[in-house]
Amino acid sequence: MRAVDLIQKKKEGKCHTKEEIDFLIDNYMKGNIEDYQMSAWLMAVCFQGLNDQETAYLTQSFINSGDILDFSSISQNIADKHSTGGVGDKVTLVLIPILAQLGVYTAKLSGRGLGFTGGTIDKLESIPNFKVELTNEEFFNQIKDIKVAISSQSPNLTPADGKIYALRDVTATVDNKSLICASVVSKKIASGANSVVLDVKFGSGAFLKTPNEAKELGELMIKTGKLLNKKIDVVISSMEQPLGLCVGNSLEVIEAIEFLKGNYQKDLYDITLELATKTLLNFNIASNHIEAKNMIDSVINDKSALEKLRQIIIHQKGNPDVINDYSLFKIGKNKIEIKANSDGFIKTLDALDVAHSAKLLGAGRDKKTDNINYGAGIKLHKKIGSKVKQNETVMELYFDKIEEIKLNDAIKIAKSSFEISKELVLEPALIFKG
Amino acid sequence: MRAVDLIQKKKEGKCHTKEEIDFLIDNYMKGNIEDYQMSAWLMAVCFQGLNDQETAYLTQSFINSGDILDFSSISQNIADKHSTGGVGDKVTLVLIPILAQLGVYTAKLSGRGLGFTGGTIDKLESIPNFKVELTNEEFFNQIKDIKVAISSQSPNLTPADGKIYALRDVTATVDNKSLICASVVSKKIASGANSVVLDVKFGSGAFLKTPNEAKELGELMIKTGKLLNKKIDVVISSMEQPLGLCVGNSLEVIEAIEFLKGNYQKDLYDITLELATKTLLNFNIASNHIEAKNMIDSVINDKSALEKLRQIIIHQKGNPDVINDYSLFKIGKNKIEIKANSDGFIKTLDALDVAHSAKLLGAGRDKKTDNINYGAGIKLHKKIGSKVKQNETVMELYFDKIEEIKLNDAIKIAKSSFEISKELVLEPALIFKG
Repeated sequence: MRAVDLIQKKKEGKCHTKEEIDFLIDNYMKGNIEDYQMSAWLMAVCFQGLNDQETAYLTQSFINSGDILDFSSISQNIADKHSTGGVGDKVTLVLIPILAQLGVYTAKLSGRGLGFTGGTIDKLESIPNFKVELTNEEFFNQIKDIKVAISSQSPNLTPADGKIYALRDVTATVDNKSLICASVVSKKIASGANSVVLDVKFGSGAFLKTPNEAKELGELMIKTGKLLNKKIDVVISSMEQPLGLCVGNSLEVIEAIEFLKGNYQKDLYDITLELATKTLLNFNIASNHIEAKNMIDSVINDKSALEKLRQIIIHQKGNPDVINDYSLFKIGKNKIEIKANSDGFIKTLDALDVAHSAKLLGAGRDKKTDNINYGAGIKLHKKIGSKVKQNETVMELYFDKIEEIKLNDAIKIAKSSFEISKELVLEPALIFKG
Repeated sequence: MRAVDLIQKKKEGKCHTKEEIDFLIDNYMKGNIEDYQMSAWLMAVCFQGLNDQETAYLTQSFINSGDILDFSSISQNIADKHSTGGVGDKVTLVLIPILAQLGVYTAKLSGRGLGFTGGTIDKLESIPNFKVELTNEEFFNQIKDIKVAISSQSPNLTPADGKIYALRDVTATVDNKSLICASVVSKKIASGANSVVLDVKFGSGAFLKTPNEAKELGELMIKTGKLLNKKIDVVISSMEQPLGLCVGNSLEVIEAIEFLKGNYQKDLYDITLELATKTLLNFNIASNHIEAKNMIDSVINDKSALEKLRQIIIHQKGNPDVINDYSLFKIGKNKIEIKANSDGFIKTLDALDVAHSAKLLGAGRDKKTDNINYGAGIKLHKKIGSKVKQNETVMELYFDKIEEIKLNDAIKIAKSSFEISKELVLEPALIFKG
């Protein structure tokens, strides 16, 4: 078998066998296949696609390239959750304590964020002293003790995906659904989950722009799970406007704590409910949606999920006092309020614009080596459908010392991120069943 | 400008500017753009194509990457000829002396052959002591002295094409007509020609399989010439059966010498006539086809073209006695005759099969480092349309010591290379005007 023949085969739109996919990935990892051959193959895949079976082969090949975590000695109820990425998405921070409190184990490996806002790991690092780099032993023991641990990605999981992702990033071969699917699903399976719920987002603030694209990717992920004998559920959700009210690391953790105190935005609650319900049903912990909702509500109402979050913070060396004293968080010293210039209803609130503005304030990074300002971010006072009066605050920008040009841009973008309509605006649909 | 954005642009089917093409090629040569980005771009080009203008930009960028030869101090009548490659194609060996004798200068840079049979340089090396590696000074002086010199490709011409061709070869991105066009035309323009005739072949023994593909490539080459202000002519010709009677290095040189003695096959003559005529018309040496034909015939008939070939051999240190004494050539010591198993007419004579058989006998090479046996090859006694009787020889196989398994394969393929029909078979069309 020769790499050039496999590139030609895909270029002609033919299907690969399992042996061919394994040959490509194994030899790429061994250095027998060069980057320039892999990138040509990836580009051919972008044009010709991979079918469901090829996608599953690629996923399995990614999994086999590294360690596969196994928590079966602890429990069979090992869950995982992944979001394809959105603005203000702090669902993991509330979902995991709720599930843990209801008997579900979560071995959560998360990444740092690249692009507009931080990832889950960045958010957690805004809690003073919170330790995100757990050894395998610490990770395992914490899961055993309190059912849940969150660690920055282990270097030995799906290294083939890591190497190929880096190549895709610089060769314009990121946006193929099979490549995205294999990347996401392989990591989740390799991290030892029996049940995975995926939040596939579309809209302005997501990398998929239309519900149809999200649906296609979601369906492919479900099929890939089936072909690899793993239960994968998918929620298709809108990312036209930010999720919840806060965008930026400290601000989002505070919003998550408030959620577990029972003070939540409807959209954040609805997505959390959907993802949690699917997980509880998968493990037969709840037998139907109503039962699941009652269970979820009860661990919020009795504050036991909040206690679970406190346990996580304590186990990972963070300061648990943040739960009751938000002043322990670093929050931008400067605040600018963006106000409505007329009466009416918020008609649009562009997630990408809000994220862009937050990033300019310091909440995100371009390169892995860039520093994030945990205290920077945006707090929304209004969302799509909200009634506003002239001069009422629509959002607050939090920041520390930044270049004037960046601040001016951030303000300009924030101001243009929303439109006000004289007409009544309905709350937009969030979760798509189709 | 970033490479990844240009790859994305081509992936989306958008057109590049001259600045973008130059950026890609210049930075690739400087090492700022990596092989893996270039190969992804090349694959995107294979799917989305380059338009005529982009193809011309790429061609010019290849030319600019290295030296550009200039013979304007010697003559304005600098011609060049290129064939996209065929079986038994010894046209260069007869065309160049004819043209030189009629006042046309040719600075011929040729490559060695890869694949089934040798290139022009390999053929010339079958002449004892013939020197193919000329210094720039030797090359220039010989052209000044006798109007023509043939040298193996200079390393400083179109190095970008060289580097990219090597990459295309291992990334399944060879077969795009714009990439082929830029590769061929850039080399011809950089080597200083004012008029270029290109023999674009199609059929079993050519890399283009249909007349339409050859026509498309030919038209693109003509347009590229126009956009770069160079006169480029194209002949579209069939390579269903070998050209002339001989395939293999020494055998082909002998056939070329016989041609210049007036003993030629009609197909070889017709193509030579077509290419020579176009060149003579381009330089206004002949004013019409009939005049051109008379001029060409006269330098064959009076043996002055043969004398020109002798001069070339003498100047390049070869033994000129080969012209009258073919025993000075190395010819395979063993001969096997392949005979007709019935009476009839040769209906097919597959060029690729003949080439494949010749290569197994030792006439070609797989890798640059492989040795060629100059004496190995095949001499056809019959061509398509020829009448044969049972047991009459159709072709002779010449070879020296080779592995039995290769010999058996060569014989088997030679036997299956032709079919005999009871019905009368017409001589096939050779040159396509359309």
